[in-house]
Amino acid sequence: MYIHVDRAAPIPPYRQIEDAIRSLIERGILNLGTRLPSSRDLATEVGVNRLTVHKAYQCLEADGLIATKVGSGTFVCAKATRAPSPDVPSDSADDPALRVWGPLFVNPRLATRALPSMAYAKECSASFVYAAPPPDLFPVEEFRHCTNYILKRRGTEVYRVGAAASGLPSLKEYLIGWLAQHDIVATERTLVITTGCQQTLDLTRKLLVGPDDSMLLENPSFPGAVGALSPSGTGLMPLPVHENAPLLDPSTLVNHQKRCKLIYVTPNFHNPTGLTMPMEQRRQLADIALQHSIPLIEDDVFGALRYEGAALPSLQSLCPRMVIHVGSFSKMLNPSLRLGWMVAPEPFAEQITVAKQVSDLHTSTLVQTAMDEFCRRGLMVRHLKRVRKIFRGRRDAMAEALRRYFPRDSRWSVPEGGLSMWVTLPDDMDTRDLLALAQDKGVQFLPGAIFYFSGVKHNCLRLSFATENEAVIDAGIRTLGDIIAKRRLRLVRPAVWQDRRAVI
Amino acid sequence: MYIHVDRAAPIPPYRQIEDAIRSLIERGILNLGTRLPSSRDLATEVGVNRLTVHKAYQCLEADGLIATKVGSGTFVCAKATRAPSPDVPSDSADDPALRVWGPLFVNPRLATRALPSMAYAKECSASFVYAAPPPDLFPVEEFRHCTNYILKRRGTEVYRVGAAASGLPSLKEYLIGWLAQHDIVATERTLVITTGCQQTLDLTRKLLVGPDDSMLLENPSFPGAVGALSPSGTGLMPLPVHENAPLLDPSTLVNHQKRCKLIYVTPNFHNPTGLTMPMEQRRQLADIALQHSIPLIEDDVFGALRYEGAALPSLQSLCPRMVIHVGSFSKMLNPSLRLGWMVAPEPFAEQITVAKQVSDLHTSTLVQTAMDEFCRRGLMVRHLKRVRKIFRGRRDAMAEALRRYFPRDSRWSVPEGGLSMWVTLPDDMDTRDLLALAQDKGVQFLPGAIFYFSGVKHNCLRLSFATENEAVIDAGIRTLGDIIAKRRLRLVRPAVWQDRRAVI
Repeated sequence: MYIHVDRAAPIPPYRQIEDAIRSLIERGILNLGTRLPSSRDLATEVGVNRLTVHKAYQCLEADGLIATKVGSGTFVCAKATRAPSPDVPSDSADDPALRVWGPLFVNPRLATRALPSMAYAKECSASFVYAAPPPDLFPVEEFRHCTNYILKRRGTEVYRVGAAASGLPSLKEYLIGWLAQHDIVATERTLVITTGCQQTLDLTRKLLVGPDDSMLLENPSFPGAVGALSPSGTGLMPLPVHENAPLLDPSTLVNHQKRCKLIYVTPNFHNPTGLTMPMEQRRQLADIALQHSIPLIEDDVFGALRYEGAALPSLQSLCPRMVIHVGSFSKMLNPSLRLGWMVAPEPFAEQITVAKQVSDLHTSTLVQTAMDEFCRRGLMVRHLKRVRKIFRGRRDAMAEALRRYFPRDSRWSVPEGGLSMWVTLPDDMDTRDLLALAQDKGVQFLPGAIFYFSGVKHNCLRLSFATENEAVIDAGIRTLGDIIAKRRLRLVRPAVWQDRRAVI
Repeated sequence: MYIHVDRAAPIPPYRQIEDAIRSLIERGILNLGTRLPSSRDLATEVGVNRLTVHKAYQCLEADGLIATKVGSGTFVCAKATRAPSPDVPSDSADDPALRVWGPLFVNPRLATRALPSMAYAKECSASFVYAAPPPDLFPVEEFRHCTNYILKRRGTEVYRVGAAASGLPSLKEYLIGWLAQHDIVATERTLVITTGCQQTLDLTRKLLVGPDDSMLLENPSFPGAVGALSPSGTGLMPLPVHENAPLLDPSTLVNHQKRCKLIYVTPNFHNPTGLTMPMEQRRQLADIALQHSIPLIEDDVFGALRYEGAALPSLQSLCPRMVIHVGSFSKMLNPSLRLGWMVAPEPFAEQITVAKQVSDLHTSTLVQTAMDEFCRRGLMVRHLKRVRKIFRGRRDAMAEALRRYFPRDSRWSVPEGGLSMWVTLPDDMDTRDLLALAQDKGVQFLPGAIFYFSGVKHNCLRLSFATENEAVIDAGIRTLGDIIAKRRLRLVRPAVWQDRRAVI
């Protein structure tokens, strides 16, 4: 639920949790009928004692906002009242729409799957939030020329009624050639155009994962992927990802009570850690997938953004029979267009084509045709060359700034590609506190906690270097470094803080 | 499964069914592990004796293509071999990919949900297949100007990273105003932009329908809607739709063993029948939805294409608390762009926004911004005026041609709007036979059978008047009329036919 407790604040933690849940109910993020996590689970997630959560729940229950049903859990049972604003019609506690709709939802926990990054992406002077190319790097004029051309000359493709669910043949043909140069073998029958990685993951879950199945996911992982693969948040087995992580013990898959139906990994420039999967682990996962017939999703959305070093073999090349290879134009060009693809063995490609038709008929032909023209004019390859140089410079600027301004006992590695760096601060630091202080100074990033679906760590943060130029990166990291330095001074003086807390 | 038995053909029905299933397996539409319908169900669907299906299954089983597991059904257990073509790599019966992937799919019947209309949309001289505006009516130049303008001047909206899942604010604002003129009350918080009606239905099912729930759907219905609302084909209760259909007996909903979680109707110019729901039935459904707290989907994709008569009150106006109103630019302008919307009470709008973000983050901002510009320049309203006149003329031409060329004992009604007419031929006619003969003469339509999910009727056909001009409509309907007349002559001479069958 992404609740943040500031231990330095003058408000007791249980009250902070109570206020946060009240606010989630007020804002309609937690709806009537939504089941809350158990106090044990929430305590682990937030990093507090279980009794603290219990006390917060008791207060909310006393106010009639939540209710505990023995044996089935704690549920939202009323809508919190806000101070009525003169302009906005009040959502009163007895709003009949809420009372009727709340119990109708099959998966009341879905609401908690809303992408947290959106909430963090506020106006600021230095944004390290988005691991996506910023609009100002978009080749605006070239793309406009392509779009203008296709609307003039390729109208029969753009406005075609009943287009193929598997994608525009011409774009598929281009991609097959492009992928061949990137270690991926695709054919007309194994390549399917989608609206992006998010859709591929959503459809893949729909096809392969039943309510009693489980899947293996890297932990931490991109929350959008976790939400798509498990909207209910259940069935997730963590595959730890950090430097020197041990190889997977395959017996965990076999002995798990729920059958493992999927493995999801990002072998190149993993989001959020930026790590590249070593050869040994690639081989192991390919072997496991083959041996146990477990589909293996290779999320390669960052793959084309490599700034140095040689690429390791793709999982698809190691295990073509079980790999679902996922790609997208989102990180290469811009995520707003919503265009991606997947390559998988024919039986899966056939099924995902039907699933795609069922869910949206086909991807917009306007977008597909414009991108096809853009690619066929050689503009995508040119654009990639250009942004690789820019992003490499920004990565180097960030690495240099971290070296300069961050404390010596913080750790990070410089990724060979991708769009972000992952920093681990000393254990006593909480990056949610850091974010609150950084926002006051106009600096934004994503606290590492939102990337964990298990064993949440609060001393990590993801710093994307995609958005800002090198000067802004330097200034922003310097600001963060300053805050951390001050914060650490405080942390070694707990007595002072306790005094101050008592005074306020 | 859309298997067609031609009773006049020299091949016995059981053999025709056997061949059809063999072909479905060959073409990969029925995959390894797919469960076949029971012989009873398939017999009802195809319109033959149960023993006929049983015999077909026995033959396929003898060939090792299918296998019956006692207590769980009949399954595809091998891939049929085709005569090997020199160019195409053969999918041999022991293709290991198929053997591995077949059993992995959660819903093996999904493959049968592929839209049949695609298969029918072949090249021809007169197409009555698509109930969608043809590309040649698209305002190509106006749309190109709008797209060019937004790529030049509204780049910050087009290329925005992290766009809102609920849609482009500017387009939403326009639609709220436009909908207000069409009897629909929407606000920024109750309107959500989607990639079209198909996505709205897919997400709605995901939110509201569990595996043990049921829903009430008009029968016949658009197969795309049926597939989106029930990908497994289960839980469907038919609401008969034809002229003078009796009002629903609400006790069927309450007494049904599975809880009814949804009602799906198309009150204006229903697809395929073209009928408009009478006031009495609108009131009844609104009452039932309210009384039993059952969400009521009002699919109004054809609503803006009214050529005469006054509009009846929308279901949303009768029952704002329970109605999910679904709209789209597909029928108004062109389906290839993939852009639509839905209006529903806030608790549902909030949930569908999260579900949409989970499944595709947001709708392409290029498409949204271009359409916003197109609408704000008044071009959509102008376009609607123009096409209403054109479609009205085409509808009249089709009605006139039907009067002239179709047999007296066939029935149809002239719809007040929409894009197609529904014709019922005498009971002894089979429109699948008619289609085969019509295709030989270059005329295409959709046999009525594909629109039924229950109690399939074979003497109906859907004739869309959207695509062809009035002269082609006249010629095409004349061709169909000729074929029907000849066919009927044959039908009254069964003895001759039996002789001939014996000879061949």
